[in-house]
Amino acid sequence: MGEKIDAFKAQRRKMNERILDTGTLQTKRFFALDGQVYEEGALGSKTKELLGLVASTVLRCNDCISYHVLQCADRGVTLQEFVEALDVAMIVGGSITIPHVRHAQAIIQEIEEEMGRE
Amino acid sequence: MGEKIDAFKAQRRKMNERILDTGTLQTKRFFALDGQVYEEGALGSKTKELLGLVASTVLRCNDCISYHVLQCADRGVTLQEFVEALDVAMIVGGSITIPHVRHAQAIIQEIEEEMGRE
Amino acid sequence: MGEKIDAFKAQRRKMNERILDTGTLQTKRFFALDGQVYEEGALGSKTKELLGLVASTVLRCNDCISYHVLQCADRGVTLQEFVEALDVAMIVGGSITIPHVRHAQAIIQEIEEEMGRE
Amino acid sequence: MGEKIDAFKAQRRKMNERILDTGTLQTKRFFALDGQVYEEGALGSKTKELLGLVASTVLRCNDCISYHVLQCADRGVTLQEFVEALDVAMIVGGSITIPHVRHAQAIIQEIEEEMGRE
Amino acid sequence: MGEKIDAFKAQRRKMNERILDTGTLQTKRFFALDGQVYEEGALGSKTKELLGLVASTVLRCNDCISYHVLQCADRGVTLQEFVEALDVAMIVGGSITIPHVRHAQAIIQEIEEEMGRE
Amino acid sequence: MGEKIDAFKAQRRKMNERILDTGTLQTKRFFALDGQVYEEGALGSKTKELLGLVASTVLRCNDCISYHVLQCADRGVTLQEFVEALDVAMIVGGSITIPHVRHAQAIIQEIEEEMGRE
Repeated sequence: MGEKIDAFKAQRRKMNERILDTGTLQTKRFFALDGQVYEEGALGSKTKELLGLVASTVLRCNDCISYHVLQCADRGVTLQEFVEALDVAMIVGGSITIPHVRHAQAIIQEIEEEMGRE
Repeated sequence: MGEKIDAFKAQRRKMNERILDTGTLQTKRFFALDGQVYEEGALGSKTKELLGLVASTVLRCNDCISYHVLQCADRGVTLQEFVEALDVAMIVGGSITIPHVRHAQAIIQEIEEEMGRE
Repeated sequence: MGEKIDAFKAQRRKMNERILDTGTLQTKRFFALDGQVYEEGALGSKTKELLGLVASTVLRCNDCISYHVLQCADRGVTLQEFVEALDVAMIVGGSITIPHVRHAQAIIQEIEEEMGRE
Repeated sequence: MGEKIDAFKAQRRKMNERILDTGTLQTKRFFALDGQVYEEGALGSKTKELLGLVASTVLRCNDCISYHVLQCADRGVTLQEFVEALDVAMIVGGSITIPHVRHAQAIIQEIEEEMGRE
Repeated sequence: MGEKIDAFKAQRRKMNERILDTGTLQTKRFFALDGQVYEEGALGSKTKELLGLVASTVLRCNDCISYHVLQCADRGVTLQEFVEALDVAMIVGGSITIPHVRHAQAIIQEIEEEMGRE
Repeated sequence: MGEKIDAFKAQRRKMNERILDTGTLQTKRFFALDGQVYEEGALGSKTKELLGLVASTVLRCNDCISYHVLQCADRGVTLQEFVEALDVAMIVGGSITIPHVRHAQAIIQEIEEEMGRE
């Protein structure tokens, strides 16, 4: 995929391996939970990934934003849906979130370019 | 409605009136925006209120949680959907959010009691 | 003064005494610093108290807001100046700060009532 | 025990029961993990509870502070040790944590009174 | 100007354009508000930019700090005034803000070098 | 030492010098306090550095994490102790801290490589 996404994925994979290799049973259980709460349930997994994206944006974590933008895109979230979810994050979290909305849009743009939509 | 909800609504209404009475054009515009971003769009208003609830929970604001729980309930969010959304907030935001999940559940319980579901 | 202000002042005084009585040299030094940075300098103490108020509002700490509203009022900050400073805090920090703007306005209102301005 | 502690314990127990009764498997697993990470290991459980207390103080959560102060006291943390841990929290987290240091000291004081140390 | 400033300005301009191009009416309105609250009023725009800088520092957002340092410099904020405002931010927000004070000082230094003051 | 550590140390030293050169008496006093609270006392300095590391992780500041990982390593903190302290931070602070646990592990890995332990 795009440059930002590739760099993020490589560093994430490498260090997550080390965390799990050196981790306790609790470390591993928390990583498992962190996957399970986004699975299909009473709420769909697309909705849950949007919840994860908005939570990551108001808490202002670029790596978490990259991760959830990619998960959302895999579940068919459209540009318009991304924009409206980021609007909610920006109003709740204020102008301090704007640099992170820029980051989210840079990742979305890389995905679009990869898919030849532009 | 329940005691917690009534107290919240009364204090919120009274002080919001003062904020708008004494506020600038910018104050009023921000309050208007804070309503508009939850309106029906590419994402439904139920989904947007869930985004607002999760954002409020990870940012740990009880008054904001009360508000979005009430808005969600008005849009038909079920107990199971509340629980799954709060699971996402709790995993993203950690155990520091648990007191706020307790607050959300106390408001949900008041709504249930009011509706004679218990 | 008003009820909220009196309760805040009494609890603050009582517990600060205990913190200083039981504290280390470092505790005492930090409390001293926390007073000194608001003193008149290249920036006036009124401006510095407004900085303290906006910092407290975006970090969403009601006790800190109460303290700085009182300090600002002592330095002649007007209602219009309070409103514009809170506008900056609200835009930077987002709608999550609104419950704390309500708290600031409740304290400002108590001060006004005490001074017979209403 | 003291008034603040009793009220905290009662509300915490009641709402945690509801959270676990209505929760998913993930909710229950996270609550279990939240106990396990403080258990004796390479680091002692006293040290881990102090880590929990400092984390709760810099994140400014009074309920979490109440919980970890009680856990620390059960593991023999002395007043001097509490004070030094809170000093670290206060320097890392700034004066915005002072209202929460006041809360921690109010809980410590209730424990002391209960134990007839004063 | 300096290297850090140029990189910041270029990336900011490029991504803000995309945000406004793809955004809703609400996105555009929030961006407009984010400019308006810093305009001259009962408080001068220099004071308001200092409020924005301190808010950005305690919330620990380097891009926001870069932006407000530049705005402050345009309004004649002196090195001594910057230092005193950053002192307030550092005492309110704690040592966790120090890396962001280093960032603010790096931007201030670039501005000074550009203006041949060193 | 490793690349990440060297870059961090060089930038930190350079900008701290400027902060102290341009700073007020208050700036210097706060920097002094920021060293003193980690000194040996009723709690050992190893425990205090672990408190600093966990506080930095839940507040999600990579530069602060780098600093405290280095201080902890100097005081003999083992890999297993690092992992358990980071477990506490991760459960308290949630999955939003995971990118910062990755950063902590990258610094720990550089230290290990430097010491020929791998």
